[in-house]
Amino acid sequence: MLVRLMYASRAVDGTGTDELLAILRQSKTRNPEIGITGVLCFSEGIFLQVLEGGRSAVNRLYNRIAADPRHTQVELLSYQEIGERRFAGWSMGQVNMARLNRALLLKYSETATLDPYAVSGAVSMALFEELVATASIVGQP
Amino acid sequence: MLVRLMYASRAVDGTGTDELLAILRQSKTRNPEIGITGVLCFSEGIFLQVLEGGRSAVNRLYNRIAADPRHTQVELLSYQEIGERRFAGWSMGQVNMARLNRALLLKYSETATLDPYAVSGAVSMALFEELVATASIVGQP
Amino acid sequence: MLVRLMYASRAVDGTGTDELLAILRQSKTRNPEIGITGVLCFSEGIFLQVLEGGRSAVNRLYNRIAADPRHTQVELLSYQEIGERRFAGWSMGQVNMARLNRALLLKYSETATLDPYAVSGAVSMALFEELVATASIVGQP
Amino acid sequence: MLVRLMYASRAVDGTGTDELLAILRQSKTRNPEIGITGVLCFSEGIFLQVLEGGRSAVNRLYNRIAADPRHTQVELLSYQEIGERRFAGWSMGQVNMARLNRALLLKYSETATLDPYAVSGAVSMALFEELVATASIVGQP
Amino acid sequence: MLVRLMYASRAVDGTGTDELLAILRQSKTRNPEIGITGVLCFSEGIFLQVLEGGRSAVNRLYNRIAADPRHTQVELLSYQEIGERRFAGWSMGQVNMARLNRALLLKYSETATLDPYAVSGAVSMALFEELVATASIVGQP
Amino acid sequence: MLVRLMYASRAVDGTGTDELLAILRQSKTRNPEIGITGVLCFSEGIFLQVLEGGRSAVNRLYNRIAADPRHTQVELLSYQEIGERRFAGWSMGQVNMARLNRALLLKYSETATLDPYAVSGAVSMALFEELVATASIVGQP
Amino acid sequence: MLVRLMYASRAVDGTGTDELLAILRQSKTRNPEIGITGVLCFSEGIFLQVLEGGRSAVNRLYNRIAADPRHTQVELLSYQEIGERRFAGWSMGQVNMARLNRALLLKYSETATLDPYAVSGAVSMALFEELVATASIVGQP
Amino acid sequence: MLVRLMYASRAVDGTGTDELLAILRQSKTRNPEIGITGVLCFSEGIFLQVLEGGRSAVNRLYNRIAADPRHTQVELLSYQEIGERRFAGWSMGQVNMARLNRALLLKYSETATLDPYAVSGAVSMALFEELVATASIVGQP
Amino acid sequence: MLVRLMYASRAVDGTGTDELLAILRQSKTRNPEIGITGVLCFSEGIFLQVLEGGRSAVNRLYNRIAADPRHTQVELLSYQEIGERRFAGWSMGQVNMARLNRALLLKYSETATLDPYAVSGAVSMALFEELVATASIVGQP
Amino acid sequence: MLVRLMYASRAVDGTGTDELLAILRQSKTRNPEIGITGVLCFSEGIFLQVLEGGRSAVNRLYNRIAADPRHTQVELLSYQEIGERRFAGWSMGQVNMARLNRALLLKYSETATLDPYAVSGAVSMALFEELVATASIVGQP
Ligand SMILES: Cc1cc2nc3c(=O)[nH]c(=O)nc-3n(C[C@H](O)[C@H](O)[C@H](O)COP(=O)(O)O)c2cc1C
Ligand SMILES: Cc1cc2nc3c(=O)[nH]c(=O)nc-3n(C[C@H](O)[C@H](O)[C@H](O)COP(=O)(O)O)c2cc1C
Ligand SMILES: Cc1cc2nc3c(=O)[nH]c(=O)nc-3n(C[C@H](O)[C@H](O)[C@H](O)COP(=O)(O)O)c2cc1C
Ligand SMILES: Cc1cc2nc3c(=O)[nH]c(=O)nc-3n(C[C@H](O)[C@H](O)[C@H](O)COP(=O)(O)O)c2cc1C
Ligand SMILES: Cc1cc2nc3c(=O)[nH]c(=O)nc-3n(C[C@H](O)[C@H](O)[C@H](O)COP(=O)(O)O)c2cc1C
Ligand SMILES: Cc1cc2nc3c(=O)[nH]c(=O)nc-3n(C[C@H](O)[C@H](O)[C@H](O)COP(=O)(O)O)c2cc1C
Ligand SMILES: Cc1cc2nc3c(=O)[nH]c(=O)nc-3n(C[C@H](O)[C@H](O)[C@H](O)COP(=O)(O)O)c2cc1C
Ligand SMILES: Cc1cc2nc3c(=O)[nH]c(=O)nc-3n(C[C@H](O)[C@H](O)[C@H](O)COP(=O)(O)O)c2cc1C
Ligand SMILES: Cc1cc2nc3c(=O)[nH]c(=O)nc-3n(C[C@H](O)[C@H](O)[C@H](O)COP(=O)(O)O)c2cc1C
Ligand SMILES: Cc1cc2nc3c(=O)[nH]c(=O)nc-3n(C[C@H](O)[C@H](O)[C@H](O)COP(=O)(O)O)c2cc1C
Repeated sequence: MLVRLMYASRAVDGTGTDELLAILRQSKTRNPEIGITGVLCFSEGIFLQVLEGGRSAVNRLYNRIAADPRHTQVELLSYQEIGERRFAGWSMGQVNMARLNRALLLKYSETATLDPYAVSGAVSMALFEELVATASIVGQP
Repeated sequence: MLVRLMYASRAVDGTGTDELLAILRQSKTRNPEIGITGVLCFSEGIFLQVLEGGRSAVNRLYNRIAADPRHTQVELLSYQEIGERRFAGWSMGQVNMARLNRALLLKYSETATLDPYAVSGAVSMALFEELVATASIVGQP
Repeated sequence: MLVRLMYASRAVDGTGTDELLAILRQSKTRNPEIGITGVLCFSEGIFLQVLEGGRSAVNRLYNRIAADPRHTQVELLSYQEIGERRFAGWSMGQVNMARLNRALLLKYSETATLDPYAVSGAVSMALFEELVATASIVGQP
Repeated sequence: MLVRLMYASRAVDGTGTDELLAILRQSKTRNPEIGITGVLCFSEGIFLQVLEGGRSAVNRLYNRIAADPRHTQVELLSYQEIGERRFAGWSMGQVNMARLNRALLLKYSETATLDPYAVSGAVSMALFEELVATASIVGQP
Repeated sequence: MLVRLMYASRAVDGTGTDELLAILRQSKTRNPEIGITGVLCFSEGIFLQVLEGGRSAVNRLYNRIAADPRHTQVELLSYQEIGERRFAGWSMGQVNMARLNRALLLKYSETATLDPYAVSGAVSMALFEELVATASIVGQP
Repeated sequence: MLVRLMYASRAVDGTGTDELLAILRQSKTRNPEIGITGVLCFSEGIFLQVLEGGRSAVNRLYNRIAADPRHTQVELLSYQEIGERRFAGWSMGQVNMARLNRALLLKYSETATLDPYAVSGAVSMALFEELVATASIVGQP
Repeated sequence: MLVRLMYASRAVDGTGTDELLAILRQSKTRNPEIGITGVLCFSEGIFLQVLEGGRSAVNRLYNRIAADPRHTQVELLSYQEIGERRFAGWSMGQVNMARLNRALLLKYSETATLDPYAVSGAVSMALFEELVATASIVGQP
Repeated sequence: MLVRLMYASRAVDGTGTDELLAILRQSKTRNPEIGITGVLCFSEGIFLQVLEGGRSAVNRLYNRIAADPRHTQVELLSYQEIGERRFAGWSMGQVNMARLNRALLLKYSETATLDPYAVSGAVSMALFEELVATASIVGQP
Repeated sequence: MLVRLMYASRAVDGTGTDELLAILRQSKTRNPEIGITGVLCFSEGIFLQVLEGGRSAVNRLYNRIAADPRHTQVELLSYQEIGERRFAGWSMGQVNMARLNRALLLKYSETATLDPYAVSGAVSMALFEELVATASIVGQP
Repeated sequence: MLVRLMYASRAVDGTGTDELLAILRQSKTRNPEIGITGVLCFSEGIFLQVLEGGRSAVNRLYNRIAADPRHTQVELLSYQEIGERRFAGWSMGQVNMARLNRALLLKYSETATLDPYAVSGAVSMALFEELVATASIVGQP
């Protein structure tokens, strides 16, 4: 049984490029063994991550991530059983945030800031997909 | 929660290009701070305006606009919660009315005059969208 | 409230091009004042006309036309409230009947003659639309 | 081909119970020969009538009625081809208007008056059906 | 054209039963003349009101109400053109709030308080309808 | 924003009625303050729990529960934004498992054991709802 | 492959109860061997018959019936492949025509006569079903 | 009322190109007078024919064809009332069977032979339409 | 993953009540261990059986049954993944065939014999369900 | 009646290219006589085969294949009655597995291995179709 899970979280103070790279490195090492694929965004101190894989594997990983002290307010935005993955080619892709501009943010939010806590999961998924579609996903599969 | 609101109003006598420009200037100054976007038409003494943004922000602004003495008969044509904005790129765009011809008016009305008071909100929205589609929106975002 | 009305009628004996032109001239003079648009066909002694406009205007005109002694058996084929006109650009267009051939008539009728009295209004509307689509509408808007 | 036609009209000044009874008498004599059935309301100087029958028969009768000097502003509200009649048992039933109260009128109108000219045909049909459902139809089939 | 409009507002400090009664008295006097019907709730300092009527009448009244100093944060929750009224029998009914219990509030909200500002208009309408359905509407039509 | 979350977990060895009661006591004390409602089943060493409430509150609680050492293999079965709660009246109801018989288990599973890990979330929800419908929920709201 | 076939025909002059009984006798003898079931109406010189059974058997019988000199103008009204029969219990039921009154005929026709040649197959089927539903089917299975 | 009728039949022994041409000649002479159009296939001793036209005309012709001694096992495959003809341009087109290959036959049948008696009418119609689409129709309109 | 499988087969000559009882005894002993449930009919030398359970278990059993020399022409009629079983309470129920009468057989077949080989799986399933619904299922769960 | 059947099986140890070629040779010799078409994949010791044809022919062949000692765990994945074949041109096509890469496997599975036993039939069909679409089918028709 495959599932797709999306969550948001806030990085703790001081988290920056180094920590992001560490997380991506960890993910790319460990996800392939357990059949996890997905994509990660980081912008304005907020993480948005999509995890795809077997239901048990995704849950085991999500529970570990939720307890990771590098972020807080880990909050599920969307969770569903799926027939096929959308990111089968990325053990953990990184979304290039350079394209995240004022108009794109306003399109889905009340103000021009990334705030997945304030909107429904479907809206975050729509914003996320527009980002994925327009920004190229960075990093080797 | 994002909403889109459309209303019609009649300019008070003497309202002309100067007043229109004043209103657009005000809008472009104040709307960005409160996350409002939208478009404004002015033709034959009638305003048609679409406002998009957070529900509270749009309502606060609408109540202020409704009390503005530069127009009267302020009447809601359409109001709905939306998943995404249509005019995310314009703090207040201005519709170029040069394209508003007899056939376009007749297409949606009994006579060849712009009269949003006489038709349903859905019809005004259709006319408005045809205007937006064929006329270019004027003014920098 | 806009409506679209379609009817058929039989020209009285002796009606020909002169009468047709007189009717078209009358229509083009009078329809614009009352916001009526539409198209008229004349073939094999049968009129098919579509009238669009405000509900009261269309009914006033239809009642006058129904009493016009130049035709008889005036029979409604279709009548509906509409959101937008289809012939907004013609005060009264004239359909060029040169394209009305045997195969086109057979497509919608039991025999190769124009007989709107024998078929449902939806079928007449389909034939009419195919005529309008393939034959060009004649006459200035 | 069966059709159902509904129209409204305004009685000319001075029309009252006598004229109404005369019309009903005429209808009950003449409609059976031509296969017409239907129902008639009269209230506040306004007629609402539904006619059902063969398409040609209904049109011949409607054209005659439209020219009847006892009423004016004869306006079609609804016209459609039907699979079966709704009033097969009445050559011309009369709706008992005693039940037409303020709340019933307000339910479908802006003000508490019967004004079919101000609303869409579907709304008049709904009001009419509620009348038919709650008021009993008067007069022998 | 009939519309139904629902809004929420916060009573200014000190508003109590006397003010509520005054508002209801005003409404019952003035609404009938302009064909307005509706229902009003007042609970925990919050007004929820539904107004039904002709589009212009409802807008004129809403603009007046929005400017009434007895409440603030007047915010539209729902607005639509309707085929028929739901409250045709009440010039302004008053919802008996005794039935508003913890479970009913929780059913539609995150916490057991009436907070229409925090939820979508559809949710407020659902809560409102459950109130109207279970609580009897108070006051003569 | 209200959500409903369902998960399964395995009690660690030695968990019995005492631990279950302790958990229920904790839940009934703490859930009301944070607006959480729901139901809990315990059978054959497996927990099935539904949590309803504000999205942030549910996530904060779920992350705490997922880290609770009294159970392991905490696995999300279903998660969705909802318009209204189903268990608004229970701070944490307890499902009476006496009705869980062989036929009921077989109806949704390959073998006659409760194994939410082997089936899709929709199936667990269906079994759960049949339990809730047939077994009475135990415990005061 | 099961099919259901409905046709109309006109009895030749002089056909009456005797011929009808002869036909019914023949049908009840021969239909069971070939798995045919159905129902037959006879009124005002018109036959309406429904035949159900294997596609080849129904066609063989229909071709024989169409050549039978006791009737003419044999015309198919409806023909379709079916999943199950509607008249499985009657080798050839006879519809009691006593219930065929003026209102029932008018409900589906322009005039109060049985004329399946003038209406679509779906309308004849509707009339036929209303007859079958209200009149009892006569004759032992 | 237009109908489309499709049937299959088996040519009696000895039927060949000469008989086929005779039938086509007859059809092209007689069909135009009675408003019939259609297409005929002949392959492996089996006829498949589509007839379109007025309901009475098609039935009169079909009854005559069914009694024609040049073929047997005349079996209806499909019969329906239609809004418009598909073969309005052919008094009787002839399908060029050169394209009828093994794969096309297998696509719709259990074995690579043309056997409309073994499949549902919808399947024969699909095969027929693929033939008409890929093979060109032979013969002048 | 649960599946439901339905097949038909022909008993070899000489199979009678004794063999049927032996098969039912075997089924009731062995099916519970492997989580199989279902129902079996036997009539006129034909078996119809429905098997429900885990996909692998059902397939292992079906392959064994297909090779059983007590019947031949074992043919799948229907196979699908299901959300819930229909016969969860029967390790192998036996359908009481006393109710299988002529009209019931004719309802779904060309002739009054049980012949699942001649009809689609959906039709056999419909006949089977009507049998199950009207005849009681025999034998303890 | 045409059906399409898909199953998976595990080759017994030692099965390799020679055995595969033998099976394909057998299939291409025998399938045409009995009207069977289809496609076969072989990868990582697992067979996936689609068989299309008459229902009886497919079942006879499937029962023979299920008993073939060259593979075990023969398990149905999908079975349905179809209107037309998808592989009418291949007596038994062979899927070129060179395109079966890690991302394609992950798209439909929890881990990057071909395991039709772990997923629903619809998922296997989707993977199979993507293989068929991207890999070319090898072997002459
Ligand atoms: C935002 C975020 C995303 C993460 N994504 C992953 C991931 O996709 N895969 C992974 O193995 N670890 C991920 N981690 C790291 C895990 O939380 C954890 O540190 C890592 O799995 C190592 O776990 P361990 O220390 O228990 O071995 C992520 C951490 C954060 C803060
Ligand atoms: C037709 C019309 C449209 C207007 N649109 C806007 C607008 O989009 N944004 C805005 O801030 N003010 C708009 N205004 C002006 C407001 O009514 C008001 O004058 C302005 O917000 C300044 O408000 P204040 O005087 O309360 O600061 C509009 C006025 C009119 C007449
Ligand atoms: C077939 C036909 C179509 C007509 N169409 C129109 C029309 O579109 N507009 C119009 O004003 N008169 C039309 N007329 C003419 C009217 O019947 C009528 O003569 C005309 O409106 C002048 O009316 P009056 O004599 O009452 O002024 C048409 C007449 C016929 C016979
Ligand atoms: C409101 C109204 C409704 C009428 N309904 C009918 C009717 O249903 N049947 C009818 O024959 N005449 C009806 N009439 C009368 C006709 O207009 C006309 O007077 C009558 O058919 C006699 O026609 P004649 O004088 O041409 O013979 C109605 C008249 C009015 C004003
Ligand atoms: C919550 C609330 C609801 C009201 N509802 C109505 C109403 O339904 N009808 C009405 O005439 N006035 C209503 N009023 C009062 C109006 O705001 C206003 O005071 C009243 O229409 C008198 O207007 P005027 O002073 O301009 O004449 C309401 C006021 C409040 C605060
Ligand atoms: C199966 C299970 C269900 C639980 N459900 C709840 C619950 O609904 N509400 C709650 O407050 N704690 C629940 N708990 C207990 C929490 O895990 C935790 O112990 C409790 O919230 C106290 O948290 P704290 O020690 O961080 O204060 C549950 C624990 C288990 C094992
Ligand atoms: C209206 C009508 C309905 C008939 N229905 C049947 C029927 O259902 N079954 C039947 O065997 N014959 C029926 N017949 C009689 C057949 O046309 C034919 O006479 C009969 O099958 C004997 O055929 P044979 O003379 O070729 O043996 C019907 C005849 C008519 C006129
Ligand atoms: C397969 C087949 C198809 C036929 N198609 C037609 C046709 O389309 N039109 C037609 O008039 N006759 C057609 N016929 C011939 C008729 O059966 C009949 O011979 C012809 O209409 C002459 O009829 P008559 O001898 O009664 O005048 C067809 C015959 C066969 C065998
Ligand atoms: C029509 C029919 C239905 C059967 N149904 C079952 C069944 O539901 N369960 C079962 O275990 N065996 C069933 N069997 C018997 C099996 O074919 C087989 O004999 C039995 O499973 C013993 O298998 P074994 O000899 O391989 O142990 C059925 C046999 C027939 C002929
Ligand atoms: C994976 C697999 C697929 C097969 N596919 C076919 C096939 O499509 N057609 C076929 O005739 N035999 C196929 N066979 C072979 C049959 O199982 C059987 O050996 C063959 O039909 C010869 O049967 P016989 O020995 O009973 O004559 C297949 C075997 C295997 C293992």
